[in-house]
Amino acid sequence: MAITLYDLSGLNGRRFSPFGWRARMSLAHKGLEADTTVELVRFSDKHKLAFSGQNLVPVLVDGEKTVSDSWEIARYLDEAYPSAPSLLGGEASEGVARMAAAYVDSQLHPLVARCVVADIPNIIHEDDQAYFRESREKRFGMTLEEIVANRDETKEQLKTTLYPVRAALRERDYLGGSTPGYADYAVFGAFMWARGVSGFKMLEQDDPVFAWRERMLDQFNGMPRREPGFPV
Amino acid sequence: MAITLYDLSGLNGRRFSPFGWRARMSLAHKGLEADTTVELVRFSDKHKLAFSGQNLVPVLVDGEKTVSDSWEIARYLDEAYPSAPSLLGGEASEGVARMAAAYVDSQLHPLVARCVVADIPNIIHEDDQAYFRESREKRFGMTLEEIVANRDETKEQLKTTLYPVRAALRERDYLGGSTPGYADYAVFGAFMWARGVSGFKMLEQDDPVFAWRERMLDQFNGMPRREPGFPV
Repeated sequence: MAITLYDLSGLNGRRFSPFGWRARMSLAHKGLEADTTVELVRFSDKHKLAFSGQNLVPVLVDGEKTVSDSWEIARYLDEAYPSAPSLLGGEASEGVARMAAAYVDSQLHPLVARCVVADIPNIIHEDDQAYFRESREKRFGMTLEEIVANRDETKEQLKTTLYPVRAALRERDYLGGSTPGYADYAVFGAFMWARGVSGFKMLEQDDPVFAWRERMLDQFNGMPRREPGFPV
Repeated sequence: MAITLYDLSGLNGRRFSPFGWRARMSLAHKGLEADTTVELVRFSDKHKLAFSGQNLVPVLVDGEKTVSDSWEIARYLDEAYPSAPSLLGGEASEGVARMAAAYVDSQLHPLVARCVVADIPNIIHEDDQAYFRESREKRFGMTLEEIVANRDETKEQLKTTLYPVRAALRERDYLGGSTPGYADYAVFGAFMWARGVSGFKMLEQDDPVFAWRERMLDQFNGMPRREPGFPV
């Protein structure tokens, strides 16, 4: 097999895209991560993705097949590698996993951004900094510093917004039960993004989500924990 | 088998508890609804639930077994009736279903309340009205009329908050895939609550969630659609 994953990169190869993390964890779940070639893509390298017909990471290339979008990558991996542990749990549970991922996209990511986005220039290449600042300031309609100005309040909001995750973790170690599944990777991607770029503490130690994140950091022999990042 | 479901009731037996609907749809999913005896409980009848050790509907009694809380009822039904179609899809998908239900509880229900709560006195027994008004006004810290005063804005917020449901429905007919599962019943319960108590239109006709709600109303030979309610 010859799998390549195109993933976003900061300085020194630091991978901090939440969607990139979903794909990376999905590959690990399938037992394919160690043998995957990683193509690091900086913000100013996006032309490297042109072959995929779009310009967002992650992109997976498996032999002749090119798949972009972390959700489509998960679906592809379950289809192409049915004998490895299922990511999405089959037709009856795939929709709820999609709902969980969309909840992360629409509700958690904006809050994480409002905690850490001003720290991102510190961990990306000099050549990417102007593009990053300009594109994000345009998207939010304010400076990076203004976006994160109330991050202590944002953190409180994040705590409230994590309620559904916390409720599910009350009865089990992972959203996927006794082992993680795609919904775990979707939520975890948000935290690996934060951990990669900022020392801001997203969670209190007594939050059950904190303990879950520790368990997630230990997955795959501690692969995520070995990734460079700030103490959480 | 002798199953009894204790469910909240308004005037003329109208059942409008979102959690009651989760339990009712769960029983129907298991093929048990038609043979279930329903004990209607009005707000002022809550003493009828004392035997269960708490005072909230729904309560399920199956022979010697008493189960309260709609989530525990679903778990119980999957355990006690394993040969009927699964509600929660087994250990690997149960956590994500729990997360979906908790998202409904924490994010959708408050918005539905802010659209319809002032209409509830019209469909409950005269004896229940003072209790209802007083307890809800205390909970929200304002009058029922004030709670719903901006419901056109609340409806916009609901539309945004439903994004994860809509994203999942883009690729399939139900959150559960080709047939509904527990996550569908959890979201649907919020809409059956609204439909039972208020003529306020929660969804626009061009919203994919609207079409899904129509499909849900047709489940079990149209059982939910036959329930008295306002046009949606």
